[in-house]
Amino acid sequence: MTVSTTTSYTLAELAERFGLVAHGDAGVRVDGVGTLAAAGPSQLGFLANSKYTAQLAASGAGIVVVRAENLADCPGAALVAADPYLAYAKIAALFERLPAAPVGIHPSAVVAPTARVSQSASIGPCCVIGDDAVIGDGVVLGPHCIIGDGCTVGAHSRLVARVTLVVRVTLGQRVLIHPGAVIGSDGFGLAFDRGGPDPAHWVKMPQLGGVRIGDDCEVGANTTIDRGALEDTVLEEDVRLDNQIQIAHNVYVGAHTAMAGCAAVAGSAKIGRYCMIGGNAGVLGHLELADRVTITAKSLVTHSIHEPGEYSSGVPLQESRPWRKNAARFKHLDAYARRLSALEKDKNHE
Amino acid sequence: MTVSTTTSYTLAELAERFGLVAHGDAGVRVDGVGTLAAAGPSQLGFLANSKYTAQLAASGAGIVVVRAENLADCPGAALVAADPYLAYAKIAALFERLPAAPVGIHPSAVVAPTARVSQSASIGPCCVIGDDAVIGDGVVLGPHCIIGDGCTVGAHSRLVARVTLVVRVTLGQRVLIHPGAVIGSDGFGLAFDRGGPDPAHWVKMPQLGGVRIGDDCEVGANTTIDRGALEDTVLEEDVRLDNQIQIAHNVYVGAHTAMAGCAAVAGSAKIGRYCMIGGNAGVLGHLELADRVTITAKSLVTHSIHEPGEYSSGVPLQESRPWRKNAARFKHLDAYARRLSALEKDKNHE
Amino acid sequence: MTVSTTTSYTLAELAERFGLVAHGDAGVRVDGVGTLAAAGPSQLGFLANSKYTAQLAASGAGIVVVRAENLADCPGAALVAADPYLAYAKIAALFERLPAAPVGIHPSAVVAPTARVSQSASIGPCCVIGDDAVIGDGVVLGPHCIIGDGCTVGAHSRLVARVTLVVRVTLGQRVLIHPGAVIGSDGFGLAFDRGGPDPAHWVKMPQLGGVRIGDDCEVGANTTIDRGALEDTVLEEDVRLDNQIQIAHNVYVGAHTAMAGCAAVAGSAKIGRYCMIGGNAGVLGHLELADRVTITAKSLVTHSIHEPGEYSSGVPLQESRPWRKNAARFKHLDAYARRLSALEKDKNHE
Repeated sequence: MTVSTTTSYTLAELAERFGLVAHGDAGVRVDGVGTLAAAGPSQLGFLANSKYTAQLAASGAGIVVVRAENLADCPGAALVAADPYLAYAKIAALFERLPAAPVGIHPSAVVAPTARVSQSASIGPCCVIGDDAVIGDGVVLGPHCIIGDGCTVGAHSRLVARVTLVVRVTLGQRVLIHPGAVIGSDGFGLAFDRGGPDPAHWVKMPQLGGVRIGDDCEVGANTTIDRGALEDTVLEEDVRLDNQIQIAHNVYVGAHTAMAGCAAVAGSAKIGRYCMIGGNAGVLGHLELADRVTITAKSLVTHSIHEPGEYSSGVPLQESRPWRKNAARFKHLDAYARRLSALEKDKNHE
Repeated sequence: MTVSTTTSYTLAELAERFGLVAHGDAGVRVDGVGTLAAAGPSQLGFLANSKYTAQLAASGAGIVVVRAENLADCPGAALVAADPYLAYAKIAALFERLPAAPVGIHPSAVVAPTARVSQSASIGPCCVIGDDAVIGDGVVLGPHCIIGDGCTVGAHSRLVARVTLVVRVTLGQRVLIHPGAVIGSDGFGLAFDRGGPDPAHWVKMPQLGGVRIGDDCEVGANTTIDRGALEDTVLEEDVRLDNQIQIAHNVYVGAHTAMAGCAAVAGSAKIGRYCMIGGNAGVLGHLELADRVTITAKSLVTHSIHEPGEYSSGVPLQESRPWRKNAARFKHLDAYARRLSALEKDKNHE
Repeated sequence: MTVSTTTSYTLAELAERFGLVAHGDAGVRVDGVGTLAAAGPSQLGFLANSKYTAQLAASGAGIVVVRAENLADCPGAALVAADPYLAYAKIAALFERLPAAPVGIHPSAVVAPTARVSQSASIGPCCVIGDDAVIGDGVVLGPHCIIGDGCTVGAHSRLVARVTLVVRVTLGQRVLIHPGAVIGSDGFGLAFDRGGPDPAHWVKMPQLGGVRIGDDCEVGANTTIDRGALEDTVLEEDVRLDNQIQIAHNVYVGAHTAMAGCAAVAGSAKIGRYCMIGGNAGVLGHLELADRVTITAKSLVTHSIHEPGEYSSGVPLQESRPWRKNAARFKHLDAYARRLSALEKDKNHE
């Protein structure tokens, strides 16, 4: 598959712009990108995964981005990068076409008189902006965004569509939020009332804090981030959240941490910087994770982690028939361990 | 519980329409459906699960749908089907009342001048339709749907309410999408930039592909389907997704595959045809699943599966007290296996 | 962190209102709340977790809520409560500022002529209210709520923003629903059609039931609750659901049960009263859980539970290197158990 646009760049221009070493005809011009297998002469491809090395020699791409070690196999013009995947990410951004976002407020939007909206912002159809909200320069609110009372959206942030900031939410600059995300909803705090004339029931703990999200963060589709009970829920800068992630109240996430889809962090947990949380992994409440901790997919973190490294839980997938036999045995694991010790003891006393 | 409507059908009409064998008074007429226990003389019930056989003789239903083997126990008129559950599904559809969907564009909708909307389509309140979008014949967009630039909705598809197609999304015909679903959001692609004057940080990989969804697919409430990085994310025809499912970029799902709620498939995984993915099950990225693979609930698929069959992971539920003892032993399972082998070796050398 | 408001209360007023015992100057007045560490003389703090006892003596809070045993350490005025967390929850509610909700229907809302909306209700921007819907006294619908045909919202309920009630949904009184929640979407019911001229394919089972939600329930952000196939899906009173929970069709949840984020309950399961379902825990379809059952986070309930108590599944988190060795051994657990038994048998025959 390939993508072409109306803008184009020469090999020499790309090399200069991104600090890469060019090989071949400096005037070769590309107007888009594609996979090694599909790219044509006006497109740029890249080789990052050695699994695809065999495709390099036959690629029809006008320019390829490769490591120095693959240069010999390039059929035409090439850009050499220490990290071709990273270099490609930067180059491909030149060819991304974002939906049009006309400056100004769409007539169907509902903006409170006390809200302050930058004249360079784009406010899409059916947006609702509450009292005392602040919308910074160059912000794009796609259709159906709701910005609650007193929320702030930092300059050049983009809320793609149908994003809800409930109340007391502050976004930094260049924050990107995908549709369906809800930020600043009530934390889940309940006190149990055993007594009184009524039957025992729950009493809601008011959620009086807010949410602070740092510069350059990204929040995926249908992800939810609750506001704090008293302190704020915090994402430091450059935190990257995939879709359908749940961040509970008073969670603190360090800078540059990334979480894959369906991960969940319970209340008051503190995640370090440069952590990687795998898909559908969970972190229990009030735990702390050090910097540079990696949690593999679907693992549950049940205790604080003080050392960087990779951590896992779970058991491997099997055909269901043998799995059922093994799983049934798990319920007796403690007994097996005792029986094993008993046998060893007997042997040693023989 | 029962459902009644203003339309009605006789035993003979139902037998003819659905190719079933009728027993009893051909003129018995029903205007709705109900459970065996609750249905009255103007309603149709069914027996699919042998657990409820005892209710059959006492049922007040005007017509019952049964297997031939249960015919003797029917108190009145009956339709005989090889698969009563399937036959009932088809008959009950006659009595489903969908919300009214007047043809035309609601005055509160915002439709780009370059969009092409069929004259037989129904566009609900507050819908937003972007540039070059195409809305086919008989399509129903319920309230608050957002159809991004260049997206296509195939004929007779129904987006119930508040569905977002972000960009480069193509839906086939008769696709049904439930509220809160987000299709075509950015895939979660990041390159890590270690160097430069800034601290190490993430660089977003542009997501230049789209999403293609085949005919007769169904997408559940709050489900998310990301668009591809270069290639498209694809659902072939008749794929059925329940609520809160996450489909990452470049995933490919074969025809007739069904996934239960909260399942998640990571990037570039390829799922075969006629697969069944259980609730909250996960599939890691870049894996392949053959046709007719079943994954049980909450299992994590960590390697490709080349043979049809049923696969599982996980351990059984127990009371927490014994569970904690067994779980603690799991951390020493490798040591136990070695100790067991050592004992066996000793014995063989006796 | 602290919260202050324009309303204030004296120690004596709070003691009387909440039935607590006051110690110190009855005229001390607070206008907000804060943590023990941050609260100032015009704010109220509390001590519920003994971990923070050391902060009590140094707290600058005007009033603290404590257990009798901590009274001696209080530096100033105090309220004595058997459960300070509960007492604080009730007091803090006095200082919660909800977003303004003007009575009446916002001009951008779309209300069907046959809908009945109380004159004391507040209907926010872009709300859509369908035929025969009923909106009770004092109800607040925040922006972008969709109330489908025939749905009822009981008195004093609050739908914060962007909540969708699809069809045949009845909410009790004082129900609180957070943004992105979808209630009354189609249950996931499919019959498999093997025969006929077409290839084998799915046939949708019409979902003809509804959803009934009792008084004082709370539903979290992006949570989904499907309507029943024939019977209704039911939440009794005071059920508390966190974010991103999935409740499938025909589930029945007993009063006062609470579920943490990302929990999921499959079709026709019946959960008792006063249950606690942990984060990302799952319950398979058609199971029954007794009253007062607790399920720990990420556990999967695979069989009915007839006795109150706490139940778990899963294995503990480890560093990935030793975990991989242990996990690999799990696939042979049945064999190990047999080998262990064989060794024991040999020993007994020696």
